[in-house]
Amino acid sequence: MKEHNSLKEILQKESKQAWQLYLPHVSIDCVVFGFHDASLKVLLLKLKDQELWGLPGGYLEKQEEIHDAAVRVLKQRTGAENTYLQQFGVFSDPKRSEGFFEGYPDTLWHKQRFISIGFYALVDYTLVEPVSDLISSNCAWQDIDMLPELMMDHQKIFDQALITLKRQLNYEPIGYNLLPNEFTMPELQKLYEVILGRKLNRGNFYRKMIGYDILDKLEETRKGGAHKAPNLYRFNIEKYENAMKNGFKEGW
Amino acid sequence: MKEHNSLKEILQKESKQAWQLYLPHVSIDCVVFGFHDASLKVLLLKLKDQELWGLPGGYLEKQEEIHDAAVRVLKQRTGAENTYLQQFGVFSDPKRSEGFFEGYPDTLWHKQRFISIGFYALVDYTLVEPVSDLISSNCAWQDIDMLPELMMDHQKIFDQALITLKRQLNYEPIGYNLLPNEFTMPELQKLYEVILGRKLNRGNFYRKMIGYDILDKLEETRKGGAHKAPNLYRFNIEKYENAMKNGFKEGW
Repeated sequence: MKEHNSLKEILQKESKQAWQLYLPHVSIDCVVFGFHDASLKVLLLKLKDQELWGLPGGYLEKQEEIHDAAVRVLKQRTGAENTYLQQFGVFSDPKRSEGFFEGYPDTLWHKQRFISIGFYALVDYTLVEPVSDLISSNCAWQDIDMLPELMMDHQKIFDQALITLKRQLNYEPIGYNLLPNEFTMPELQKLYEVILGRKLNRGNFYRKMIGYDILDKLEETRKGGAHKAPNLYRFNIEKYENAMKNGFKEGW
Repeated sequence: MKEHNSLKEILQKESKQAWQLYLPHVSIDCVVFGFHDASLKVLLLKLKDQELWGLPGGYLEKQEEIHDAAVRVLKQRTGAENTYLQQFGVFSDPKRSEGFFEGYPDTLWHKQRFISIGFYALVDYTLVEPVSDLISSNCAWQDIDMLPELMMDHQKIFDQALITLKRQLNYEPIGYNLLPNEFTMPELQKLYEVILGRKLNRGNFYRKMIGYDILDKLEETRKGGAHKAPNLYRFNIEKYENAMKNGFKEGW
């Protein structure tokens, strides 16, 4: 009895279907950031028969929009829907997969040149269930500070996604899918600090965040601590969505 | 004597070469913004034998990086090199060119499904010389407020580029390629106002721009006016390039 099909057998089987189903030369890679309890992780897949990990990815169906393809890939790997998902880069080095499929026939789907469209997503990682794909033996959250060795140009794709996410903090709200409905200002600050990878001044953070005008302060406070009960906030959905579309009020 | 080859003849000739030279299914569209003397324009091509205009575009050579392809297209249409050029979107509606090549054989290069990668560029429009391509009868700067009817999804691509450029004002410096070496604060403000399409408060603009910390104030002032000679500024290249890479100092 065979324990599992080898990577080679799976690729060759997948290749035939892929030529039927997908548009050649275009692929998708998803950098799925997961936040929970003051830590930021990224979803990775471990390749069968190899020590390498990779980003969840896929291809574009012949009549599919690229954003729908990214939504489909994300749902297959995490079960998550209605997630914030944004295109952030195009990865087109002609040598990006050079050597990776050595020994395979040139007709193998995976061996053609792919222009990969990068998307990043933000989820609460305790709310999703990672699922491996056909060519992986594991799908798991990894700390962004301790990434394993990644296949092909996936480290570069990850780095670019993180830069884009940090930059996004300056012109778009984030946090709606990552924090509980009601949160304190220190909890929101923690999210920003984890993404930026550094501490922020508490007073500056408070002033700037209030200036963005996307929060409602609640009447009630958080009970139970030894200190003065901290104020609770909630995102004002209307203002939040407006800022997602038009940028922050304090911008130009 | 024939006045010129018809669009149909040119497309069929171009098609044969294209299948040899380019990677299928991937195209490029460039939104080239031109600024000069308080007006913002975009570079458009008028299709031969049609009343439609379109964005300058092209395809990806079989062994070319996508950014290099955009540089090549921009150089062919404007002669400009070393221009600020940024990828901003991917346009993948499966019906984006539907009906456009009706009557042509299915083997026509142009009739396949293309995923188009959008780039935008910023140039001083007095410094470049627009050049038509094979399928165009004219290449000209058009006011962004009075665009002619555009082919396929090019209006959507233009709109997305303009939104991205406006947003960029909040997190990256712009102006280095668009203004003379030395300029006054009102001249810089004008550039921002033309891109944003609205007036800005003079005091706020001054404070915010100084806060970005990318300008050097010169010793000399602008001579010759009836009023007090205005101060002159110059971009501090080191700080400017650092802000291009890392975002503005005043961000998070």
